[in-house]
Amino acid sequence: MRVLETVEAVRAAVKNAKLKEQEVGLVPTMGFLHDGHLSLMKRARMENELVVVSIFVNPTQFGPNEDLESYPRDLAADLAKCESVGVDIVFTPSVSEMYPTGYSTYVNAEGNITKTLCGASREGHFKGVTSVVTKLFHIVAPTRAYFGQKDAQQVAVIQKMVRDLNYDLEIVPCEIVREADGLAMSSRNTYLSETQRKEALVLSQSLKIAKQAIDQGTKEASAVIEIMKKHIETAPSATVDYIQIVDARSLEDLDIIRGEVLIAMAVRIGKTRLIDNMRFIVV
Amino acid sequence: MRVLETVEAVRAAVKNAKLKEQEVGLVPTMGFLHDGHLSLMKRARMENELVVVSIFVNPTQFGPNEDLESYPRDLAADLAKCESVGVDIVFTPSVSEMYPTGYSTYVNAEGNITKTLCGASREGHFKGVTSVVTKLFHIVAPTRAYFGQKDAQQVAVIQKMVRDLNYDLEIVPCEIVREADGLAMSSRNTYLSETQRKEALVLSQSLKIAKQAIDQGTKEASAVIEIMKKHIETAPSATVDYIQIVDARSLEDLDIIRGEVLIAMAVRIGKTRLIDNMRFIVV
Repeated sequence: MRVLETVEAVRAAVKNAKLKEQEVGLVPTMGFLHDGHLSLMKRARMENELVVVSIFVNPTQFGPNEDLESYPRDLAADLAKCESVGVDIVFTPSVSEMYPTGYSTYVNAEGNITKTLCGASREGHFKGVTSVVTKLFHIVAPTRAYFGQKDAQQVAVIQKMVRDLNYDLEIVPCEIVREADGLAMSSRNTYLSETQRKEALVLSQSLKIAKQAIDQGTKEASAVIEIMKKHIETAPSATVDYIQIVDARSLEDLDIIRGEVLIAMAVRIGKTRLIDNMRFIVV
Repeated sequence: MRVLETVEAVRAAVKNAKLKEQEVGLVPTMGFLHDGHLSLMKRARMENELVVVSIFVNPTQFGPNEDLESYPRDLAADLAKCESVGVDIVFTPSVSEMYPTGYSTYVNAEGNITKTLCGASREGHFKGVTSVVTKLFHIVAPTRAYFGQKDAQQVAVIQKMVRDLNYDLEIVPCEIVREADGLAMSSRNTYLSETQRKEALVLSQSLKIAKQAIDQGTKEASAVIEIMKKHIETAPSATVDYIQIVDARSLEDLDIIRGEVLIAMAVRIGKTRLIDNMRFIVV
C-alpha cells in the first residue's frame, strides 16, 4: 500500500494503472475510519483492480460554527485499517495541496436538493462537498466512486452533479453499517458520553417505528413524522433538527408516502449532531 | 468527418481513440465560424490525433437582455469549414441534450476574476462558460483544449478553473486573428453596418496607441486609459463599456504597468458590444 500526499503522485500512480486498462475504485473519506468506511473499501476492492482511498478533512464543507477543529483524526489507525482490507493507494493531501492560496472555484448543485434536509442548517456544506469531490474525481479519474448511504443527501447531490456535469464514472451508494444495537456508524459517535450513546438509539428506533406505521397503512408523511418526533422526545438529551420524508432522488418533500421514499433526520444528542435515514419503495 | 448530436455518441467515439492511446484536441465554439476559430482548429489538428469541435450556442452564458435569440447561426457553412481543416468530429448537441429538465449544477470561479472586465456588465456570464466548458471537458476528455485569446478573460477564468479543480488537461490559448485592417474577428461583427464596421477600428487602433505610449515611457495605467478613451470617442457610434489594464493572470487592476500585462476593453458600436485586448510583458 502506498501513502501519497500530492496530486501529482496520485495522478502518476493512477495513470500507470490506466495504461494497463485497469479499473479504478475511489473511496473518498474524512478519515477516523469505522466499519462503515471499511465496507465501502471492501466493495471497491471486489469491483476494481486499483483501489484509492482519500483521507482529507475538507474545510470547505464545514460551516463557521461547526466542528472542523475538533473533528476526530487518527491517521496511523486509519492506514492500518486501509491496509487490512487491501487498499492500494491512500491519498492524504494537506489543506494547502488541495486549496492553494487564491483558490476560488466551486461546484454547486443549486436549488432544493442542497437547500432541504441538512442543507437548511448547514449552509454551503454541499457546495464544499461537490467541489472537493470534483477535485478528487479529476485527480483520481475513477471508474467507480463509493459513498455511504448514511449521508443520503450527499449521495443524491453527487449523483445529480454527475448527471448534470457529465462525469464519466459510476457512483456506487453503499448500505448503512450499524452497531449491533442499531446506531448508524459515524466518526462523530465518539463525541457521545455513555448516557448519550444509549439515548442516540432513538434515531434508528424511530426509523423502525416509522416503517412499521407505513407498512400498517399510515401514508400521510406528517402523521409518520409526528410518531417519530414523539419517540425521539423520550430521550432527554435529544433535540430534533429535522425529520423529513422525501422523494429519494429529487429530495422533494412528500405529502403522501409513495414511490422511492427517503426518511431522513438530523437530531442533536447533547451538542452532537447525528443523522440517520431509511430508503425504501412504497407501491 | 462525423457530426454527432449526443453525449453518448461523442463519448463512444473518443473512447475508441483513447484505447489506441491517441491524443484528443477539443475546440469549443458557438459556431458561425470565422478565421479565428479555424486557426484554433488548425493548431489542434497539428498537435493531436483526434480533433473534436463543439458547436453549441450556450444559453447559460447569455444574460436576460443579451443576444441569445439573434446570435448568428449557420451550421451548413460551419460544417464545411470544419471539414476543410480536417476536423474529425463535430459535436452539435441540442439545448435539451446539454441541459435536461431539472438541470441545476454550476461551476463558478468566484471573486474578482469573474467580476472585473466583462464580468461587471455580464453577470453570470462566466459561470455559464465554466459550467458548459466543464461539461465538454467531461464528455470529450481532451488532452488539450483550444481557446482564442480574444476572449482573454475567458481564457484566464478557464485556466483558473483548471488549476483550482485539477482538470487533467492542457489549455492552449491562441493568438487573436484580425481582419486586414486590424478589427479582431468576431461572429458579432456581422451585426455592424458599413459605417459602424469602419468606426469599429477604434478598438484595435487604441490598443496600438496604448502600446506606443507605454513603449515611450508612460507607465501609469490611468494615463494610458485616458489616451485610449480619447481615441475611441472620435468614433460617433462608440460608447466605452470598460477599458482596464490588469495583471494578465489574476486580472487585478494595475496602477503601474509592469509584468505580464493585459489591456482589455469592451466598446459598444451602436448596439453591438465588441471586445478586444492586447497582452504583453513590461519589464
